[in-house]
Amino acid sequence: MSASANSIRLAVVPGDGIGQEVVAEGLKVLAAALPADVALETAEYDLGARLYHRTGETLPDSVLDELRGKDAILLGAIGDPSVPSGVLERGLLLKLRFAFDHHVNLRPAKLGPGVASPLGPDAQIDFVVVREGTEGPYVGNGGTLRTGTPHEVATEVSLNTAFGIERVVRDAFARAQARPRKKLTLVHKNNVLVHAGHLWSRVFNQVAAEFPDVTTDYLHVDAATIFMVTQPERFDVIVTDNLFGDILTDLAAAIAGGIGLAASGNINPSGEFPSMFEPVHGSAPDIAGQGKADPTATILSVAMLLEHLGHTDAARAVEAAVDADLAERSSSGTRSTSEIGDAIAKRVAG
Amino acid sequence: MSASANSIRLAVVPGDGIGQEVVAEGLKVLAAALPADVALETAEYDLGARLYHRTGETLPDSVLDELRGKDAILLGAIGDPSVPSGVLERGLLLKLRFAFDHHVNLRPAKLGPGVASPLGPDAQIDFVVVREGTEGPYVGNGGTLRTGTPHEVATEVSLNTAFGIERVVRDAFARAQARPRKKLTLVHKNNVLVHAGHLWSRVFNQVAAEFPDVTTDYLHVDAATIFMVTQPERFDVIVTDNLFGDILTDLAAAIAGGIGLAASGNINPSGEFPSMFEPVHGSAPDIAGQGKADPTATILSVAMLLEHLGHTDAARAVEAAVDADLAERSSSGTRSTSEIGDAIAKRVAG
Ligand SMILES: CC(C)[C@H](C(=O)O)[C@@H](O)C(=O)O
Ligand SMILES: CC(C)[C@H](C(=O)O)[C@@H](O)C(=O)O
Repeated sequence: MSASANSIRLAVVPGDGIGQEVVAEGLKVLAAALPADVALETAEYDLGARLYHRTGETLPDSVLDELRGKDAILLGAIGDPSVPSGVLERGLLLKLRFAFDHHVNLRPAKLGPGVASPLGPDAQIDFVVVREGTEGPYVGNGGTLRTGTPHEVATEVSLNTAFGIERVVRDAFARAQARPRKKLTLVHKNNVLVHAGHLWSRVFNQVAAEFPDVTTDYLHVDAATIFMVTQPERFDVIVTDNLFGDILTDLAAAIAGGIGLAASGNINPSGEFPSMFEPVHGSAPDIAGQGKADPTATILSVAMLLEHLGHTDAARAVEAAVDADLAERSSSGTRSTSEIGDAIAKRVAG
Repeated sequence: MSASANSIRLAVVPGDGIGQEVVAEGLKVLAAALPADVALETAEYDLGARLYHRTGETLPDSVLDELRGKDAILLGAIGDPSVPSGVLERGLLLKLRFAFDHHVNLRPAKLGPGVASPLGPDAQIDFVVVREGTEGPYVGNGGTLRTGTPHEVATEVSLNTAFGIERVVRDAFARAQARPRKKLTLVHKNNVLVHAGHLWSRVFNQVAAEFPDVTTDYLHVDAATIFMVTQPERFDVIVTDNLFGDILTDLAAAIAGGIGLAASGNINPSGEFPSMFEPVHGSAPDIAGQGKADPTATILSVAMLLEHLGHTDAARAVEAAVDADLAERSSSGTRSTSEIGDAIAKRVAG
């Protein structure tokens, strides 16, 4: 979007664990998919556990400044058992999402050809979750009193604004309108979280008036998890808050063949800041460095990146190559991370 | 627990929608299961949408006072589309849970004999969720600023105390210790909700030291939803906060054969206040009054009620009758709510 058609300045943040391995395959496929007249300029940033242990920093200001000038960011995975839980997540991953105002966290769930779902061979799964990315319980607001004592009290404050909800809801309506089924489901818990929930519902209903051809629906988050395993065909586009979106998209990934296939885009629709593309999965330290990670989620995230930058044909080519690869997986035996990347890159190039 | 062995003073709150129908069957089975020398004294309270429309009240103080003197409460379902979302949930259901300090919200998930799971015939599902019931994002703390304007801000405050976490975590450890597999999984999101999450983890690890024979595990809530559909056999006992427990138990119900079978107990372990037993499902206004509702979840909640009051044999008899009924369902055709209740009551009595 913000990129000129003929060059891409890409920041690459491999991160921790399997991040390095899967990002390498993503870049391989990106290079194969890009039109010959588009120059790709990549800069790699070594952020994550290594930097943290060396310097105590998670995201130096100088790096944040450099990233700001990029057209997009490709991220592998963040998190390592050697770092206390939350330090890298909050100090790096969420800091990037918040600093670059990635308010549309886009997570498609589609059962690819030949992919086994835990729901069986007849499951119909083809929906997109539009997860709000800059508000809700993720703002980091809250604290502790009498910390470490038997009288400790800890709070978490979920912040929700009409401004923040309206822009992501409008984006979701537009996405629903562009799809054949034109259906948008709001997921929240407005019978318990009445303050935030009623605001979400009010804004949703207001924006709905601008999209009369979109069918709307509301589900409490608990009911949404039921339908996701009993009637996934019910969903077309879902819009929800940051925390519910986190939960629902992992569940969505699980029913659509696993977290190894789930792509995501942290989108700043205005293009004011670079958008960031990353697999939904984590750093999986248990299998890191062994060539066992499935790079498909990263490769599909690269397709989202291409689409976001206006290279629609290249995006479709990557998706088609992944589909073709998936369809043959049952007969292709166990392949390493780079073998899968090579196979998909070859299909894209050929 | 608080009841003397020879009499039960039971408050019955049928509530809205299908609540009336399913509670009637629960009472039928309760009467059949109770030992002959136990006197059952029931008092019905007409709470829910009807009372609200008539008087504007959700839970009059006088009723709350009467309920306080009971040994237990059997509740059907709360909620009606004619009442704004949240009014009855917060003003009645949650008010009862909070007023009577139901801090252990117990929700078993077990795939009954012959019951079809969306995960297929080989799914192994036999776990219990211990959901905290009196804290977290359910406290109702929060509010709105510039309400109804494009500049509205809405907050929800999750409150978590070491005191509140410790008691429910200890209860969950004891339950895990009493089960053959002795495994307890803490579910939270301590990499993002760091204040509350670290408090949960700290208290969990402290209490764990008292239960060295219990295997412990931690999962982020998003990962927990994945395992619930890919490896449900991984779970034995889960302990989690109020909101994550709400979400996970609906998902657990879905994989274990549906919300029509999911029972729950809102337990006040000290017996200071009456505990409350209710199906996990809602009021299902779309099928209310048609004899279509499955009363099994309520009947299994009655078994939990019996167990809580020390009538263990009667509880086991109800569970066995339900299992026997479930095992024959594929051949018993479509039955009405009361036909299912009759069949189970007959098995219990015979
Ligand atoms: C790692 C974690 C902070 C992150 C999140 O909660 O958003 C992850 O679960 C995701 O979904 O991208
Ligand atoms: C009706 C609602 C307030 C309730 C809850 O969220 O606890 C229900 O979903 C449940 O799980 O018992």
